[in-house]
Amino acid sequence: MSGSTFGKLFRVTTWGESHGAAIGAVVDGCPAGLSLCEADIQEYLNRRKPGQSRYTTKRQETDQAEILSGVFEGKTTGTPISIIVRNQDQRSRDYGNIAYTYRPGHADYTFTQKYGFRDYRGGGRSSGRETIGRVAAGAVASLLLKEMGISLTAYTKSVGPVTVPSDAYHFDEITENTLYMPNNQAAKEAAGHLDLLMKNQDSCGGTVECMVDGLPVGLGEPVFDKLDASLAKALMSIGAVKAVEIGDGISAAASSGSRNNDAFAVRDDRIIKETNHSGGTLGGMSDGSTLLVRASFKPTPSISQIQHTVTEEKEETELSIHGRHDPIIVPRAVVVVEAMTALTIADLLLENMSSRLDKVKAYYTED
Amino acid sequence: MSGSTFGKLFRVTTWGESHGAAIGAVVDGCPAGLSLCEADIQEYLNRRKPGQSRYTTKRQETDQAEILSGVFEGKTTGTPISIIVRNQDQRSRDYGNIAYTYRPGHADYTFTQKYGFRDYRGGGRSSGRETIGRVAAGAVASLLLKEMGISLTAYTKSVGPVTVPSDAYHFDEITENTLYMPNNQAAKEAAGHLDLLMKNQDSCGGTVECMVDGLPVGLGEPVFDKLDASLAKALMSIGAVKAVEIGDGISAAASSGSRNNDAFAVRDDRIIKETNHSGGTLGGMSDGSTLLVRASFKPTPSISQIQHTVTEEKEETELSIHGRHDPIIVPRAVVVVEAMTALTIADLLLENMSSRLDKVKAYYTED
Amino acid sequence: MSGSTFGKLFRVTTWGESHGAAIGAVVDGCPAGLSLCEADIQEYLNRRKPGQSRYTTKRQETDQAEILSGVFEGKTTGTPISIIVRNQDQRSRDYGNIAYTYRPGHADYTFTQKYGFRDYRGGGRSSGRETIGRVAAGAVASLLLKEMGISLTAYTKSVGPVTVPSDAYHFDEITENTLYMPNNQAAKEAAGHLDLLMKNQDSCGGTVECMVDGLPVGLGEPVFDKLDASLAKALMSIGAVKAVEIGDGISAAASSGSRNNDAFAVRDDRIIKETNHSGGTLGGMSDGSTLLVRASFKPTPSISQIQHTVTEEKEETELSIHGRHDPIIVPRAVVVVEAMTALTIADLLLENMSSRLDKVKAYYTED
Amino acid sequence: MSGSTFGKLFRVTTWGESHGAAIGAVVDGCPAGLSLCEADIQEYLNRRKPGQSRYTTKRQETDQAEILSGVFEGKTTGTPISIIVRNQDQRSRDYGNIAYTYRPGHADYTFTQKYGFRDYRGGGRSSGRETIGRVAAGAVASLLLKEMGISLTAYTKSVGPVTVPSDAYHFDEITENTLYMPNNQAAKEAAGHLDLLMKNQDSCGGTVECMVDGLPVGLGEPVFDKLDASLAKALMSIGAVKAVEIGDGISAAASSGSRNNDAFAVRDDRIIKETNHSGGTLGGMSDGSTLLVRASFKPTPSISQIQHTVTEEKEETELSIHGRHDPIIVPRAVVVVEAMTALTIADLLLENMSSRLDKVKAYYTED
Repeated sequence: MSGSTFGKLFRVTTWGESHGAAIGAVVDGCPAGLSLCEADIQEYLNRRKPGQSRYTTKRQETDQAEILSGVFEGKTTGTPISIIVRNQDQRSRDYGNIAYTYRPGHADYTFTQKYGFRDYRGGGRSSGRETIGRVAAGAVASLLLKEMGISLTAYTKSVGPVTVPSDAYHFDEITENTLYMPNNQAAKEAAGHLDLLMKNQDSCGGTVECMVDGLPVGLGEPVFDKLDASLAKALMSIGAVKAVEIGDGISAAASSGSRNNDAFAVRDDRIIKETNHSGGTLGGMSDGSTLLVRASFKPTPSISQIQHTVTEEKEETELSIHGRHDPIIVPRAVVVVEAMTALTIADLLLENMSSRLDKVKAYYTED
Repeated sequence: MSGSTFGKLFRVTTWGESHGAAIGAVVDGCPAGLSLCEADIQEYLNRRKPGQSRYTTKRQETDQAEILSGVFEGKTTGTPISIIVRNQDQRSRDYGNIAYTYRPGHADYTFTQKYGFRDYRGGGRSSGRETIGRVAAGAVASLLLKEMGISLTAYTKSVGPVTVPSDAYHFDEITENTLYMPNNQAAKEAAGHLDLLMKNQDSCGGTVECMVDGLPVGLGEPVFDKLDASLAKALMSIGAVKAVEIGDGISAAASSGSRNNDAFAVRDDRIIKETNHSGGTLGGMSDGSTLLVRASFKPTPSISQIQHTVTEEKEETELSIHGRHDPIIVPRAVVVVEAMTALTIADLLLENMSSRLDKVKAYYTED
Repeated sequence: MSGSTFGKLFRVTTWGESHGAAIGAVVDGCPAGLSLCEADIQEYLNRRKPGQSRYTTKRQETDQAEILSGVFEGKTTGTPISIIVRNQDQRSRDYGNIAYTYRPGHADYTFTQKYGFRDYRGGGRSSGRETIGRVAAGAVASLLLKEMGISLTAYTKSVGPVTVPSDAYHFDEITENTLYMPNNQAAKEAAGHLDLLMKNQDSCGGTVECMVDGLPVGLGEPVFDKLDASLAKALMSIGAVKAVEIGDGISAAASSGSRNNDAFAVRDDRIIKETNHSGGTLGGMSDGSTLLVRASFKPTPSISQIQHTVTEEKEETELSIHGRHDPIIVPRAVVVVEAMTALTIADLLLENMSSRLDKVKAYYTED
Repeated sequence: MSGSTFGKLFRVTTWGESHGAAIGAVVDGCPAGLSLCEADIQEYLNRRKPGQSRYTTKRQETDQAEILSGVFEGKTTGTPISIIVRNQDQRSRDYGNIAYTYRPGHADYTFTQKYGFRDYRGGGRSSGRETIGRVAAGAVASLLLKEMGISLTAYTKSVGPVTVPSDAYHFDEITENTLYMPNNQAAKEAAGHLDLLMKNQDSCGGTVECMVDGLPVGLGEPVFDKLDASLAKALMSIGAVKAVEIGDGISAAASSGSRNNDAFAVRDDRIIKETNHSGGTLGGMSDGSTLLVRASFKPTPSISQIQHTVTEEKEETELSIHGRHDPIIVPRAVVVVEAMTALTIADLLLENMSSRLDKVKAYYTED
C-alpha cells in the first residue's frame, strides 16, 4: 500500500496519474551543494517526450519541469527536492466502454481487483506517463553521479527481432536515429519492421541496455541489497519490463566456468578484469569494470486489432483500442532505464560510505 | 551497510559465514497462530544439503535447524522467530595463497575493497552456505502460503545447454532425479554433460524456474514494489544469478502485441486469461493465473583448471582451486529460488491487506 | 540524508521551505475508497493558519490546498495523494545580517554545519511552515481514522505557567478561545501572561495534549515500533518539542506500583481498565482505553530582545529579531500534534492487520 | 507485524522470550574493522544482570554472550554480527492462574488481543529480559562511538520521590552504589524509600538520564528522523518508559524565550553555546554541546499486594504476584537507556556522512 518510494538514502517518491492535474517526484537525500536547475531536468524529460517520431504517441505534452523546493541559489540544500510536471493534454473525452472493459495486457483488471475501482482515464497510475517522475528524479541522480565521475549510456539494443550485436555498437549513432539504437543501419531495419507492424495494427517490444563507467569498487550491500539485485528491482518495476540481465545474463547459464570466469590482471598498477562476462559485478558489488544491465520490454499492449476480452460485469466482449499509442515504447524507455539505473547507483553510493571504520573515522576527523 | 534484511512486513534478517560458528535467520512479522516446528524447516534445509549426489560438494553438514524463539506450544506467537544452524564442518586448514589471492568469478576482490579485509575461510559471507538462512526463513513463508492455499513448485529448467521445454514438463519426475529436472530423460542428458565437464575440471550453469498457484489477484505495490520487481530483486540477490525473467521473459521482446497479449475470458463465472505470456502479473500485480519466474545461474566459479589472477599485493599469479566444490550449483539452488519466491509473496500478501477501505473496515468491525 | 518520510504503510513524505515556491506532502498507502476533497484538507490547514489572533504571526497566507493526484471521482484510488500549498507571501527583502548570523535557539547553526550552507530565508526547511505538509497529510489520516470510528481531540493544556488541570477540562470551550484551551478562564489568564511577555519582547512555551478514542486493542508493533514509541518520535519531530509523555508521563516515576497499576474489570461483557494512568497503552500496544499523549514546547526562540550570538565568520555579535513572529507557537501547534498522532495511528492500524493468521485467512477467503 | 528492527544503516534486530531457549540480537551495518570480542559485550550485559543487589530479581542468569558471526580475527567484517545469550534459568513451573489472568500494568491483555494467544511464561517477549538483545547490540554501538571520540554516561537521576539535582552530580559515585545514582547520599535515601515499599509489597519508578559528549555537529535527519525524535522513539520503546525529555524537557514549556535560548559565543576559535537548555540539539540536529536525554520509568507493575483484575474468560478475580520481581527496574535500566542512545547515535552518525557533496566527493577521491 505504499510502493511509490524507491531508495534508502537517495530516496525518490513519485506520484501522479496520466490524466490528473500533474505528475511529480520528491527526491529526498540528495547531498547538499549539487548544482541543479530546471533545465537540467528538462534535458532528461525531453528524451522521453511524446511526439518525437512517427513511432511515438502524438499526445501533445510540453512536459515542463518545475522545481518547487530543495534548491537555493542554484544548489541543492540537502532538503527534499520537489519536482512537478503539469499535465497539459487532459482532453476531456468519452472513455465509453474502456472504462468498464479490461484491456488485455494492461493493468485494468488487477487495479480494479486490488483497489475496488480504478482511475480509467488513460491508464491512471499505470500509464507510461508515470515514468515522468522517475526520469525527473533520475536526472538529479545522474547529475550527482556525473560529479563523482560516473557516466551512464543507455540505448536500444533490439527492436522486435532486430538486434544490434555488441561488436557493432557505434555509440555516436545513438542520437542519430529516432530509435536510439547504437547502429544506424540496424535502426533502419527496425524502422521497416515497425512500419509493417503499424500497417497490421500491431506493436512490438525490444531491449534496452545501459552501460555505467567510472564506478568505484564495492557498491552494493550483501546479501539482499546487492547492486545487481537492486538494479533488477529498479528495472523490473518499469511497466512492460519482463526480464533483467546483468552482463552475459541468461547466456551465462549455458556457458562453462572456464569461459565465464573473468581473469584478473594488473594494468598500470591497477587490478582489472581481462574480460567482463560478469557485467561489472562480483558478489553483488561493483567490481570496477563497466556495469552492463539489460531490460527486455514486452510489446505495447494497446493495439488497434480487435481483441477478445471481458467487462467488469464479467461479460465477454470485443475491443479495439484506438487513439494515441506508440507501436513500440522502447525508444522512449531508454531514458527511463538510464534514470532507474542512476537512482539505484546513487543510493548505493551513499550507503557504501559507512562500510569501513577507517573511512568513517577519516570522514569525521578531517576538516 | 545493512543489506541483510529482506521484506517490509514479513521480514527476514540472515546472518552467518561459511566457516563461522553458525548460520541463521530471524523471521519477524510472521502472523501468530501458524503451526511450526523444527521438522518443518528441516524438510526445506534437506533439499539444499550438500553431499546428495556426485554433482554436489562432499562437505559433510547435517545442517540441523533449531528454533530459538517465536514459537510457543507449536504455534508462532507473532514475535521474531530465530532459527539457527550450527556449522559442523569447520575443518581447520591452511588456506595458503587463497587467503591473499582473488579467485576469478568470486567476491574476494570486491569484499576486500569494500570492507578493507575479508573472512577468507570458505568465502565467508559470500559462500553458498549463506543461503541456509534464506531457506530456513523461506520454509516459514511457504508454510504460511500453504495455509492460504498458495503452492510453489520449483525445478531445474536447464543445465548448461540441456533445457526442458515447457511442453515436456513432468512434475512428478522432479524428485526422481538428483538434478531436480521435470523430465528424467533431460536429466540423464544433463548428467552426461556434467560428467564431461568434471573430467575437464570445468563447471556449468543453468536455469531454475518457479511456478506459484493459488495467488489472489492484486498482490504487489505499484509503482516500485510491484510483485515482479520484488521477485526480481529477491532472485537476483541469490549468488550467481545473472538474469531474472517473468513469464515469456526476454522472448517477449521479440514478440508482437497481438501474440503477446493474453485475452481475458470468463469461465465458471470467473475471469481468466486464455494464455499466460505475462507469467501471472499485470501492471506488476498478480493477475490470478500461474506466476512463473525464472532465474539464470552462471557456472560455478570454483574450477580446478589453472586460472590467471592476481594477489592482494597486485601480483599476477596462477591459481587452481581444489577441494569441495559443486560442478553446478543449480540443483541445490532450486529450493533457494523457491524460498526467495515464498518470502516475496508472503510479504506482499500481508501488505496487500490494507489496500481497500471497505476491507480495512470489515477487518476491524467483525469480531 | 532522507528524513522527510514518516510511516511504513501509511506513509507521508513532506517537502518545502518557508520562502520557496510551495510546500507539500505526498501521502502513499492510503486505502482506496476514502472520500476526500480539498475542503477536507483545508479545514485542517485553517486551524494552523497565521493571522488568527494577536498571538500569531501577521504573515498573510491563504494556505490553499490543492490535490494533484490519488483522488478520482471524490475517492482515494490507492495511489499516492499529492497535496500542494503555494507560498503566497514570499516578500522579497534584505535578510541582512540574519543571513550570516546564527539566531539562538534556531537551527541556523546546525543546518549550516551539516549541509555546508543554508536557505536563510525565513528559516528555510526549519520554519514552522514545514508543518503544513504534516497537517495536510494528517487531515487524510484523520479522515481514515474517522471512518474507523476513531476520534482525536487536541488542545492546549498549558501556556507558560498557566495549566489546565485534567479535572477542569471543558472540551466545548476549546474552540471558544484563540489559544485552544479546554477552559476559557485559563485561556484568559494565559492571554494576560502573553500580553506581559509581548510587552517585554519575550516569548513563552506550553503544552499540547491529544486524546484518542475508539482505538481497537493491540495497535503497535513490539518491541521497537510500539504505539507509544512511534508517537514519541512523531511528536518529538515537531520543531520546538522538548518532551513527550504518555498517560501520567513523568509523574509516573514518582508513583508506586499499587497506585499506578490500572485494575482490570468487566463492564457490559467488555474488559475495561478502572483507571487510566497508563494513558491507553500496555506493552506498547493500545489497550482499549483513551490514548493520552502530551508534548511540551519550548518558548518561541525568535524574540525582539537583544541577544548575544555569533556570525558564520565566528565573530561575536548582538542580534535583535524583528518581524513576524508568534510570542507562542503552541495554539497553532495543536493541529500539528493532532496530525502527527493521526499519522502514527493510521500507520499502525494498517500494519496491525497482519498480526494473526486466522484474520489473514479470513481476509482472503471471504468475498 | 515486524517491529523488532531498529535503525536504518546501523540496524539491530532483536529476538527472544523470557523463558525460551535463548535471547539475541543481529547487528547489521556495523562498519568493518572495529575491534570486538565477547568480553566487550559481556561488560555491558553484566550491568543489567539480575541478582546484583537486594533490589533486583534473584533469578539466576549468567547471561553469557556468544558471538556467532560477523567477526574475524578480532575485528568486525562488515557482515551481520549475531549475538546470542542462552537462557539458563527456565525453571519449569506451574504458571497456574497467571496463564489465564491479565496482570494489571502488564502486556498480557494487549498481547492476547493482538496475537490471539500469548507465551505466558514470564511475560514472554514483553519480559525485561527482552532488553538483553538491546544491550548486546548497544555494546557494539558504544564501541563504535568510542572509536569516534563519543562517550556516554547514564545514571539513575531519581528513585520515586528521591531526585538528584543537576548541581549535585558526582559522576564517580555512580558505580559506588547499587542504584547507579550520581550521588551516594541520595542513593542512601532512595534505598530507604525502597525498603519501605518492599515492606508494603509495593514498587516504585524513577528516572534515568544519559549524557553524550563528543558528538559532531549536525547528526539527525530533518524533518522526521531528527536526533531528538529518534532518541524519543528509542527510549520510549523500552518497556515501562512513560516520558522522554531532551535538555530542559517539560520545564522548557514554562520558561520564556529570553531564558531558554542558549546564547552562542566563540571560545578558542570554536563556536559554543553559553548555556545548554536545549540539551545538545537545535533543529533536531546535534549542536556540539552535551546531549542530555531523560526517560521516566513507571513503577514495576509486578507487586505482591492483592490486585483486582480479570481472566481471559472475562471473569473478575483477585491476583497476588509472587516470585522474582524487582521493586524497581530503574537501576538495571540504566544500561538499557545507554544502549538505546548509542544505537540511535551510531545510526545517525553513519547516515550523516552523505549530507554534503564536497564530503561525498572527498570520500571517493582520496585513497
